[in-house]
Amino acid sequence: MKSIPLILMGCGGVGRQLLQHIVSCRSLHAKQGVRLRLVGVCDSKSLVVASDVFTMDLDDAFLAEVCRVKLNGSSLLTLSNFGQCEVFSNTESMEKVTEIAARLGKSTGLALVDCSASSETTGVIRKVIDLGCCVVLANKKPLTSSMEDYDKLVSHPRRIRHESTVGAGLPVIASLNRMLSSGDPIHRLIGSLSGTLGYVMSEVEDGKPFSQVVKAAKALGYTEPDPRDDLSGMDVARKALILSRLLGRRINLDRINIESLYPKEMAPNVIPVEDFLLNGLPLLDKGIQERVQKASSNGNVLRYVCVIEESRCEVGIQELPKNSALGRLRGSDNVLEIYSRCYSEQPLVIQGAGAGNDTTAAGVLADIIDIQDLFS
Amino acid sequence: MKSIPLILMGCGGVGRQLLQHIVSCRSLHAKQGVRLRLVGVCDSKSLVVASDVFTMDLDDAFLAEVCRVKLNGSSLLTLSNFGQCEVFSNTESMEKVTEIAARLGKSTGLALVDCSASSETTGVIRKVIDLGCCVVLANKKPLTSSMEDYDKLVSHPRRIRHESTVGAGLPVIASLNRMLSSGDPIHRLIGSLSGTLGYVMSEVEDGKPFSQVVKAAKALGYTEPDPRDDLSGMDVARKALILSRLLGRRINLDRINIESLYPKEMAPNVIPVEDFLLNGLPLLDKGIQERVQKASSNGNVLRYVCVIEESRCEVGIQELPKNSALGRLRGSDNVLEIYSRCYSEQPLVIQGAGAGNDTTAAGVLADIIDIQDLFS
Repeated sequence: MKSIPLILMGCGGVGRQLLQHIVSCRSLHAKQGVRLRLVGVCDSKSLVVASDVFTMDLDDAFLAEVCRVKLNGSSLLTLSNFGQCEVFSNTESMEKVTEIAARLGKSTGLALVDCSASSETTGVIRKVIDLGCCVVLANKKPLTSSMEDYDKLVSHPRRIRHESTVGAGLPVIASLNRMLSSGDPIHRLIGSLSGTLGYVMSEVEDGKPFSQVVKAAKALGYTEPDPRDDLSGMDVARKALILSRLLGRRINLDRINIESLYPKEMAPNVIPVEDFLLNGLPLLDKGIQERVQKASSNGNVLRYVCVIEESRCEVGIQELPKNSALGRLRGSDNVLEIYSRCYSEQPLVIQGAGAGNDTTAAGVLADIIDIQDLFS
Repeated sequence: MKSIPLILMGCGGVGRQLLQHIVSCRSLHAKQGVRLRLVGVCDSKSLVVASDVFTMDLDDAFLAEVCRVKLNGSSLLTLSNFGQCEVFSNTESMEKVTEIAARLGKSTGLALVDCSASSETTGVIRKVIDLGCCVVLANKKPLTSSMEDYDKLVSHPRRIRHESTVGAGLPVIASLNRMLSSGDPIHRLIGSLSGTLGYVMSEVEDGKPFSQVVKAAKALGYTEPDPRDDLSGMDVARKALILSRLLGRRINLDRINIESLYPKEMAPNVIPVEDFLLNGLPLLDKGIQERVQKASSNGNVLRYVCVIEESRCEVGIQELPKNSALGRLRGSDNVLEIYSRCYSEQPLVIQGAGAGNDTTAAGVLADIIDIQDLFS
């Protein structure tokens, strides 16, 4: 039986779902000769580690308890029984993870799994890679900071996986990596990579006012608590940057043209969210409606997309043919069209649900299983 | 630098293209720290092997010469200069491959790459797997023979890859494997997996007579020399069997319901191909036309698809909604819709060119690069 020691950073929706998937896949993975061994779990406040990372792991009952506590929005520190675990505070935890990586890296190996949304994990991830360990990311931040950080993270490309940073569990990164490694040069990527903005753009296409659609999306739980976090385009821009860098472009986030769906005067640092929803949003209806109508009169539809082509990397609204894969998109599905030498006239299209804890965690788990050959 | 010794079986269109891809990707792969080392190449008549498989390989000039000879339709035996290679006849070659696998399997490892269309490679593949080596297949035959053979082939699942057996280089198998390994159970697969039949069905939808469309497809080089090899549905059935077995169904080819697009009286063992094209085919026009019209009156279109669902595995014409991914399919693209827990309402859709030597060989090459962690 091959054993893969794991440390999970981030026990929000995705991290919790990952723990549940790992437990429910125990017998499936045993049949494949693999055992995932959780040796540590951390949230923003603390790190819980098995007292001997070589011989012990956090058992399934303990992981269930972690999920229960985190589902209630509590900290790991509120766990009622730490059993034989050690607990470290926020200030010590990254150092402790590095120490474990140094010890396990030389013998059994270790996979550090980042399901947080923090930009503060980059440092420990860099160290862990240096120590010969593997990294699996759902967190976009470490891959979208400086080029220096990025180069370090991908310095051993087989030891880092990050499928769930783009399109949740959709096999986007895996497919692009396959194409790149087979020498099929990618000329152009165009995709709708935000379920939220995909939903918004297909609803306004039907004539509904932008403000109403955004409020409905918020009510459905499709948006962040402040919908401007989606409407700013920053999340899509991070995905676009990850894809651009995967294709070899050496650019930073500030090199991406990003169209925000609200003006500067309505930014979070200018007006509060309630004010934005009540008074700001309705002012945007007319502009969007006019653009929808203009597109429609050209036989086109509007989509909020990322376009990567040669040195160009743009994120924003584009007029697209109604009968393209992107134009036909409805609801919150993601879609990516890939043009390359092998897919030159018609693109390779990957489409499906691109959000949700279940599919995001499934993508992380598939990545973990996919690095098994690096473990003894 | 990691070195992956390879033996290529089959130097037809795909095998030749693979050799060209390998040579043109030399510097790309060197950057990734990988070197693909061709130690042997065989066609149906003979095997050419480097005289010392541990220290030597077939150099790029020699591989170019192999491609030139095979493009002319000649046998490897007609090569003008064998340099330091050894040549073995058809009768000795499989034994020699096994012998090399036994020697390399214990030390550097070996990947046996089957780009032939032969059912006679199954024996040597079984042996090579037993000897600890890897196998990459574009050939569907070994995976579609008996369950006993299949079980043997996948007995070490990490050591066998076969992306290009379904949908050419489209990331179908890789994506399904990711889903399966993350415990996302697949409920239903429906796909158009024949570029030829995809083209035929979308052309008859436009009102063109079936017989004319088939002849046009033949003229365009979309069909086999005898179009009945496509119209029988057997090629799609083999792909359906590979997908079914991947999902864990223990069935053989004879358990698949296959709809042939010509009747028994027009089979190859009854009438010659010229007779079929001239006199047989036109008799089928009316039936197809009526079915197209009936579907159209229901707002549907006809597609030649494979459907895999619970114990059901069918290959044939189905009426499908015009506005589904399958219904919208035009031309020779392949498309696969995957329904699972994560993709339950809307499927995960993978679409793109599913035929052609370039993309098929690219899929094989991506598989080879993907097993690199199994080599030292």
